[in-house]
Amino acid sequence: MTTDIGQRAAAMLAEAAEISEPGPGVTRLPFTPEHTDANELVAGWMQAAGLETSRDAAGTLIGRREGVDPGAPVFLLGSHQDSVRGGGAYDGIMGVLLPILALQGLRDERLPFAVEVLCFADEEGVRFPTALIGPRALAGTLDSAVLDMTDRAGISLRAALEGFGDAARIGGIARAPQGVLGYLETHIEQGPVLEAEDLPVGIVTAIAGIERHAVTITGRAAHAGTAPMGLRQDALCAAAELVAGVERICRETENAVGTVGQLDVVPNVVNAVPAEVTATVELRSAEDDVRAEVAERIGRVAREAAEARGCTLRMERTYQQPAKACAPDLQEALAAAVEAAGIRPLRLMSGATHDASAMADLCPMAMLFVRCRDGVSHHPDEHAAPEDMGHAVAVLQGFLQGLAKDARP
Amino acid sequence: MTTDIGQRAAAMLAEAAEISEPGPGVTRLPFTPEHTDANELVAGWMQAAGLETSRDAAGTLIGRREGVDPGAPVFLLGSHQDSVRGGGAYDGIMGVLLPILALQGLRDERLPFAVEVLCFADEEGVRFPTALIGPRALAGTLDSAVLDMTDRAGISLRAALEGFGDAARIGGIARAPQGVLGYLETHIEQGPVLEAEDLPVGIVTAIAGIERHAVTITGRAAHAGTAPMGLRQDALCAAAELVAGVERICRETENAVGTVGQLDVVPNVVNAVPAEVTATVELRSAEDDVRAEVAERIGRVAREAAEARGCTLRMERTYQQPAKACAPDLQEALAAAVEAAGIRPLRLMSGATHDASAMADLCPMAMLFVRCRDGVSHHPDEHAAPEDMGHAVAVLQGFLQGLAKDARP
Repeated sequence: MTTDIGQRAAAMLAEAAEISEPGPGVTRLPFTPEHTDANELVAGWMQAAGLETSRDAAGTLIGRREGVDPGAPVFLLGSHQDSVRGGGAYDGIMGVLLPILALQGLRDERLPFAVEVLCFADEEGVRFPTALIGPRALAGTLDSAVLDMTDRAGISLRAALEGFGDAARIGGIARAPQGVLGYLETHIEQGPVLEAEDLPVGIVTAIAGIERHAVTITGRAAHAGTAPMGLRQDALCAAAELVAGVERICRETENAVGTVGQLDVVPNVVNAVPAEVTATVELRSAEDDVRAEVAERIGRVAREAAEARGCTLRMERTYQQPAKACAPDLQEALAAAVEAAGIRPLRLMSGATHDASAMADLCPMAMLFVRCRDGVSHHPDEHAAPEDMGHAVAVLQGFLQGLAKDARP
Repeated sequence: MTTDIGQRAAAMLAEAAEISEPGPGVTRLPFTPEHTDANELVAGWMQAAGLETSRDAAGTLIGRREGVDPGAPVFLLGSHQDSVRGGGAYDGIMGVLLPILALQGLRDERLPFAVEVLCFADEEGVRFPTALIGPRALAGTLDSAVLDMTDRAGISLRAALEGFGDAARIGGIARAPQGVLGYLETHIEQGPVLEAEDLPVGIVTAIAGIERHAVTITGRAAHAGTAPMGLRQDALCAAAELVAGVERICRETENAVGTVGQLDVVPNVVNAVPAEVTATVELRSAEDDVRAEVAERIGRVAREAAEARGCTLRMERTYQQPAKACAPDLQEALAAAVEAAGIRPLRLMSGATHDASAMADLCPMAMLFVRCRDGVSHHPDEHAAPEDMGHAVAVLQGFLQGLAKDARP
């Protein structure tokens, strides 16, 4: 049964993937003709699952079924329709379609709460230098200044929204927290953990907080032949200690990852001692205090590495975003549903940001990760197995049924 | 007295520095109008010092004085007239002018051997993809195929030589080793050692051998947030160990320097685990077996660093040039002259290549280094103090007088 549903999910995702700008993989940006087509396709599936469709002012497509009591609070499920340029068929849209399939299967089952499937317009932030306007509008955290941001063609977000939402009404769609039971987002893992653990799905503990630093180490150029080792101020040797320090400290720390992703050497020629290195350090952790401690240790390593070589160090935090914990009771409910599906309930951090990051400001939030082949995402090769998606649908159903049981007196 | 001579040297170098293409610093390429003007200026100074001037087929300007016995062998002194683009006023040409000043001071002194000051055309290899044709022609090691190499304008070296030398006769100017007592080159250090030791001059022990390696470390791109530390194949972390290894091993090894001068990261973005790093490793040592051992140890470190992270390593030697030892008896003679001038005789390796590298194939070779401000060369800021040049002239004179004394029965 889960395999049949998984195959159905795969077929639906393949159909959705055809709605794309030309080119390799999927390119589906928000507030475009492709977005219109995707909404139409998804709305049809929502309706087939017995959901009533509508769109809110932020351009979010909503499929809703009422609870037994029409005044009952709502549980939200969903993710985003958009992709990166040349992305895959799963990131985002899978988290819209699997809940639709789950609710289709529960069509004849009465739930004490309302359920909505949310299909957000823009999570990737590819078209405008902002993202998450759908969940932020619902949480009441949207800064209306972003509406004036423009895309590469000079079109403002405000103008782009026309025909999808209504910029003038966007401030009014914030939900009342007491009316919302929670939000559950289903998403491909975009990492290798579930594959390594041989599990179809996993329960997210938190969405990692992120900080980024710009590092400049300035030494002194010298002739690679005539400058003895002891008289060098080699910026790259200092930077190598920083790279090694980031790796070592993050390996030693649970729940943290750290990456030197960008590193540039000046003058970058075979026979010159490097005069300057610029690099980035990115740190992510499910716990903000762990991340702060890691950052402090890395800063110390970098300072010492520079000083030991007579180099100067500039290290500046350029970005910071706090961690968002998944609600413990929703994690428990997910774990119960995972176990009921015969799967070991592994918990893992989400290193990437999701719509759930913004939804956490509105209501208790949880995420279900689906195994992703080779950990690849944001690429045409992105893939989740039909069987795994079938398991995810079963877990979503078990989760909603569990919530229903708990909700009944 | 040494200060007066030093001031005179500084004035001559300033005059020579004016013979340059427009732009910052000195740009004097071989077989150009600037080369013609430089030869004319230098030839005038040679003649004023009692030297008879001529030019050989490789375009080398020669100033010669005979020994007491007209059939006596010759001792050679010299360096090159050319500069890099935007270079300094000292590199090369100083090693032509200081011997002229030394011989001017010894004008009335009879020496049992002939002396020649050689002003080579092209040591820097900026114009043609070759260099050292003057000393190679004298040593009989010139590959005549280089005459067909062209500059950026498509002019062959053969054609460029016209008016300076004679490509057709270049194979015939090799000197008979038994007629040559030795070659002494005076050069700015191009490094910081003499400055750190507070010495005006130093005695070179050898011109370092050089080898270069192209290194490619291939790991796997991954999302900086979603790939846990333990499941990464981070090419930059492996490369950092290589950089640290080169530094550590070369620090531990006397007479060796090693540099990772170039390092490029792919994809080089803040939130991606580096998939691939390409880098260069350059090693120099006065002793070829030391260099070979250092290369072997570094290769092992690189392999282990790559393997430990599931990365692959490709490390290929792209260049190799053996070390050239300075003749021990000429080093002794220089040391005696340095001590006689009241200077502690420090010996040091030359990390850079010089005309002397090619002359070593003809005859015993030695080099005298002159302190160079801040270790800077190949730059308009290149500078040697007049006092230091005065000391160098005194040492050259003492050296020649010492040789003369030894030569007399």
